[in-house]
Amino acid sequence: MPLVQVDLDRHLYDSHHAEISKAIHAAEIEALGMQDDDLFQVFTPHDAGELKFDPGYNGVDRQQLVLVRLTMVHMYSVETKRALYAAVRDKLGGCGVRPEDILICIVENGFEDWYAGKL
Amino acid sequence: MPLVQVDLDRHLYDSHHAEISKAIHAAEIEALGMQDDDLFQVFTPHDAGELKFDPGYNGVDRQQLVLVRLTMVHMYSVETKRALYAAVRDKLGGCGVRPEDILICIVENGFEDWYAGKL
Amino acid sequence: MPLVQVDLDRHLYDSHHAEISKAIHAAEIEALGMQDDDLFQVFTPHDAGELKFDPGYNGVDRQQLVLVRLTMVHMYSVETKRALYAAVRDKLGGCGVRPEDILICIVENGFEDWYAGKL
Repeated sequence: MPLVQVDLDRHLYDSHHAEISKAIHAAEIEALGMQDDDLFQVFTPHDAGELKFDPGYNGVDRQQLVLVRLTMVHMYSVETKRALYAAVRDKLGGCGVRPEDILICIVENGFEDWYAGKL
Repeated sequence: MPLVQVDLDRHLYDSHHAEISKAIHAAEIEALGMQDDDLFQVFTPHDAGELKFDPGYNGVDRQQLVLVRLTMVHMYSVETKRALYAAVRDKLGGCGVRPEDILICIVENGFEDWYAGKL
Repeated sequence: MPLVQVDLDRHLYDSHHAEISKAIHAAEIEALGMQDDDLFQVFTPHDAGELKFDPGYNGVDRQQLVLVRLTMVHMYSVETKRALYAAVRDKLGGCGVRPEDILICIVENGFEDWYAGKL
């Protein structure tokens, strides 16, 4: 039950949200070994000015911000997380999202921290 | 100071946000022994397409997504969390929200991770 | 790479978002020793009714809610966090935001939990 929250410009949401959703989901399946039907994504489109970032931080040329936050159980290795980042980057690239524009942030919790439709 | 963040369809927000707010708050008071005036809730209504989910994951018949995220201090047992899930489910049921449509996600932090109006 | 997420009333966002952004960023630089170009902020303006709070909780006179959530690496002492709260409070005060109306919430993760534009 990773929960995925995506904050992005409204114009990118409007034109590409279905593709972006599928790309992130495919990256989780590939890198985390997640089940195909384990899909919980919240997209929040933002108007100009709401997403604030530095265009050069971390030595990259950043043109917009596509924020992918994942809340997931503490059970994945550092290598698995890096594989996830690479998969998200590659698959979002297929939607025209530049690697430099992506920010991924993971927050972890435990198995006991979820309720997904039944006890 | 649990912080509650609720993401839900705009039509459900428009018709039921006051009831949903009270239901979640009552569940926290009942299950966590929280003070009555410890209320911090952020509702984010979403337009069609922004909340993406699988209708059958975890063996339930899901029709919409009502996401309840709680950020709270690491001090509650697994049993207390389960009691919270049951209370949220039961009380949201009183607002017409189906148990299957609820996703609850807890993230924990420490006492030192809060500022609530004064140092 | 602290990620800053700010939830606030739309009218306050419209009139003051640039100042509020700069104030929070300056507070992080001052209190955390953060780099100047380490800027990732997501503002979400809310309409009336979406931010729910008690006007007296914690013994303060609260008139609105300005929620500042920070996701940052687990590496700061309790003293540093308190210095951050004081700096955010003071600098937001310079934008006309009352100390009583601020809620700050920190969630921590690890260095391996971030991707910021490159692997």
